[in-house]
Amino acid sequence: MLVDLAFTPYELEKKELTCKSVVVIDALRATTTMTVGFENGAAAFIPVETVEEARDLVAKNPDFLLAGERRALPLEGFHLGNSPRDYRPQKVKGKTIVMTTTNGTRALVVARVGAEVFIESFLNLSALVDRLVVSVRDVVIAWSGEKYLFCLEDTVCGGAIVKQLEKTGLRLVKPDAASAAKILYEQCEGNVYGMLCTCEWGAYLEGIGLGKDVRVCAQVDSSKLVPVYREGKIFLDR
Amino acid sequence: MLVDLAFTPYELEKKELTCKSVVVIDALRATTTMTVGFENGAAAFIPVETVEEARDLVAKNPDFLLAGERRALPLEGFHLGNSPRDYRPQKVKGKTIVMTTTNGTRALVVARVGAEVFIESFLNLSALVDRLVVSVRDVVIAWSGEKYLFCLEDTVCGGAIVKQLEKTGLRLVKPDAASAAKILYEQCEGNVYGMLCTCEWGAYLEGIGLGKDVRVCAQVDSSKLVPVYREGKIFLDR
Repeated sequence: MLVDLAFTPYELEKKELTCKSVVVIDALRATTTMTVGFENGAAAFIPVETVEEARDLVAKNPDFLLAGERRALPLEGFHLGNSPRDYRPQKVKGKTIVMTTTNGTRALVVARVGAEVFIESFLNLSALVDRLVVSVRDVVIAWSGEKYLFCLEDTVCGGAIVKQLEKTGLRLVKPDAASAAKILYEQCEGNVYGMLCTCEWGAYLEGIGLGKDVRVCAQVDSSKLVPVYREGKIFLDR
Repeated sequence: MLVDLAFTPYELEKKELTCKSVVVIDALRATTTMTVGFENGAAAFIPVETVEEARDLVAKNPDFLLAGERRALPLEGFHLGNSPRDYRPQKVKGKTIVMTTTNGTRALVVARVGAEVFIESFLNLSALVDRLVVSVRDVVIAWSGEKYLFCLEDTVCGGAIVKQLEKTGLRLVKPDAASAAKILYEQCEGNVYGMLCTCEWGAYLEGIGLGKDVRVCAQVDSSKLVPVYREGKIFLDR
């Protein structure tokens, strides 16, 4: 099984994705938030690129919720931000949530040509790995970081997938990117929270008073759910 | 002092380089080969993109040497390949060498807007760091890898620069990419040769019988020379 990584959505565009499983990570915070949303009963997420698209879609479907952020801050008139702590059952149960985040959709748009697309964070690491093992497809791990910037937390989260896949006894083909990500994960395996606090984006979140969110994002294996992305929607397919 | 890294020439294009020192690395093998060439008396390298450009330039300047490779293999009618072991004093002393390599020029073309551009490999690691400390400019480390691919050996070589700069007591601003590169270097600090043998490109070189070149590329701090790139030429400016 080939396990490759794309450090930016731009790199992802250059990779052959058909017939592969694509894993999309935005550990701080979008993919964590979605997983918490599903744990609390959300029906689906519809990721869209712009604030205008989000508003239009909710105007046409008044029972949908409007969610998202820009530079981690909430948007005026939105029902939800991008804090996992917002997504309580009483707010999200049974709801379809239209979501726009600073970087959230780019990787998804590119990833959609994959045979299957999974949404991952530290919360559903082991569940995702179980799913990849069952599917037996080659894997490309991608993240929704800023278009041209390397992002430590998502690289580490990707490295954790590589390490866990190896532990299952599968024989992996690992390009340099996968080997590097695995090494980076091993350096903080016992302290994912510490890494999340010190990486660039985590430090920014802490600095604007969102440290509690960072703590939620560090809850490794707290969920068994593996959301999938298909035809423009993120949902649980089983 | 800011120390940033660009994992691909494409990422480098997106960075602000004016007023900065740009370090270009192609440890396996181009920048190693150049350093060995200068140690053995070469006057200058002129990096060009295509085989045709190289041939034309040497046709107009018959005292120049024609050098290069494609996929690590020598080119017909060329005086030199890209093996550092080719660049013996009797061949290169006093010579200007026109060089074309698979990936060699892309990063240089982008890097040329920097205030100064240095050529680095494991051979001149400490000498380069001394030079950066004197120049006191912000630093961007870049490599001539394939346009969209992560490359372990050059990331590690960049991480070695980050680590050595920190050791000098300079207070560094490190984006995630620099922190990650430093961690990756620390994992193989005592065994650079082992890392070079097992990374993707090093394994390829070993596989086609160029293992002796990999050994040369692992000679950390064997040179005090720091070639610079200016106005289309690589040379020693002092």
